[in-house]
Amino acid sequence: MKQDNITKAHARIQQFIHRTPVLSSQLINQKVEADLYFKCENFQKMGAFKMRGATNAILKLTEEQRSKGVVTHSSGNFAQALSLAAKSLGVKAHIVMPENAPQVKKNAVLQYNGSITECESTTKARQETANRIQDSTGATFIHPSNDMDVIIGNGTACKELLEDYNDLDYIVCPIGGGGLIAGTALAAHYFGKQCQVIGAEPMVVDDAYRSIMSGKIETNSSTNTIADGLKTQLGDINFPIIQKHIKQIIRVEESEIISAMILVFERLKIVIEPSSAVALAAVIKQKEHFKNKKIGVLFSGGNVDLSRLPF
Amino acid sequence: MKQDNITKAHARIQQFIHRTPVLSSQLINQKVEADLYFKCENFQKMGAFKMRGATNAILKLTEEQRSKGVVTHSSGNFAQALSLAAKSLGVKAHIVMPENAPQVKKNAVLQYNGSITECESTTKARQETANRIQDSTGATFIHPSNDMDVIIGNGTACKELLEDYNDLDYIVCPIGGGGLIAGTALAAHYFGKQCQVIGAEPMVVDDAYRSIMSGKIETNSSTNTIADGLKTQLGDINFPIIQKHIKQIIRVEESEIISAMILVFERLKIVIEPSSAVALAAVIKQKEHFKNKKIGVLFSGGNVDLSRLPF
Repeated sequence: MKQDNITKAHARIQQFIHRTPVLSSQLINQKVEADLYFKCENFQKMGAFKMRGATNAILKLTEEQRSKGVVTHSSGNFAQALSLAAKSLGVKAHIVMPENAPQVKKNAVLQYNGSITECESTTKARQETANRIQDSTGATFIHPSNDMDVIIGNGTACKELLEDYNDLDYIVCPIGGGGLIAGTALAAHYFGKQCQVIGAEPMVVDDAYRSIMSGKIETNSSTNTIADGLKTQLGDINFPIIQKHIKQIIRVEESEIISAMILVFERLKIVIEPSSAVALAAVIKQKEHFKNKKIGVLFSGGNVDLSRLPF
Repeated sequence: MKQDNITKAHARIQQFIHRTPVLSSQLINQKVEADLYFKCENFQKMGAFKMRGATNAILKLTEEQRSKGVVTHSSGNFAQALSLAAKSLGVKAHIVMPENAPQVKKNAVLQYNGSITECESTTKARQETANRIQDSTGATFIHPSNDMDVIIGNGTACKELLEDYNDLDYIVCPIGGGGLIAGTALAAHYFGKQCQVIGAEPMVVDDAYRSIMSGKIETNSSTNTIADGLKTQLGDINFPIIQKHIKQIIRVEESEIISAMILVFERLKIVIEPSSAVALAAVIKQKEHFKNKKIGVLFSGGNVDLSRLPF
């Protein structure tokens, strides 16, 4: 039973994660004419919700599996999350990264003792390299978003939000690989009172929107968005959950993402990454739809390259 | 008795201000080899500690005085603070601003219903314009930093910090006009356990450092610092308090201020203004001095022009 799974996952990971605060802004509420509750996973350990799923996935392994390490391919937050979660639990983490990944992302993994293996920047090369590491070390592969333990771990953010505010009408959540929104949808289903989860996606990488429409996993022909955490596509484990629970996905323009990001920096005085701003941008865009409602907004993370802020 | 004054001020303003959180970062603590507790007045209403002093000063006025309004000259946070505090209390606020003040600062005052009177950009013109408004309206002049009720109101931030962490060895506080550090010094004296307050000042506007040395209020020949809140000089009300209680002022370079600001954005994921970063820069600079100590760091505010970030 999933409710129980999320509750158990929460108890399992609790000592390794932060219970992140929920912030509000009178001024933003006035602007959108609704009550917004921002779940601040930018304050999570290593700066993103991915710490939850990574920790849960490692803790679900047997002693023997853990002794052989874990492996993933990611150039983003999951690479850091798996490295830090593994370090906290005394497990070896192998991270496959494209050779052209920015040095700042490699450094972020290295500071958490992740062991980097570089490969060509193609999906095929990433998967093959991860497979090779699995074969040679016996490490367990943990996918950044298409893994049930990762999904359930991610769902604990929504569980906490609903513990703090149990009468939310909506929760708006960014969609990238689908691991956060799938976990959020499950948690809202089990812990909310008819709380509906709505997806938020950049227009230029609207693969989830199109996937819901077509009934099969779609891909993006271009990934030219500032929301670098949302470029990836859905997977066969999270897609059925999303199909079942998510009735609406709001797509936003790049300029709307940047405006929302500025609003958060200026008014909430917190640092979020563009992927987080996508959720607020969606609420602002569909203001009429949300009028006078109570809305949870999931800020997925705060790992942004300060030298490349869009303002 | 001042202890009682601060306690009363705190009770008086409580419903009009936020009790701001105190944040920490394991990574920053590791870097400085000490325990740092950041008092986050960037999360205060209107984004800075000045809301405390402004609110206390207005609440100390008689009904009749309040009916005639308040007036100040400021182009910075105090202009916004007095406007918002006055608005909350149903009082008219006249703000004298230099005609060349950036539109963004004028807008910030206007959004809180402050009534702006422009004047030439000289100290004399500002004072004369404020005097003229006093004469014609009967409004009470409230100085941004050299006013005992403002100083005591500002001291409530330190009182809260010491309520949360009562065994701090040091509190490091930025020095501009002297209104925050004077209030902090009084609060630390009355509520701390031998907690020493240390000033932090940009090298290029080190008037407070020189004032302590010479025993009289010194001025700055240039004000070319990124910490725009710290350009002003001390006053005859706060200087004696500073002279009595502050034994050390640490001066920091502009590059050190910027580095500290980046560290806060990256690690604490919060938005602070450069004046706030000065206090952390001072701790980092004198790391050896602070080793293994418990240190409160006052983040004075978070109102920064995002289009002019130094990174």
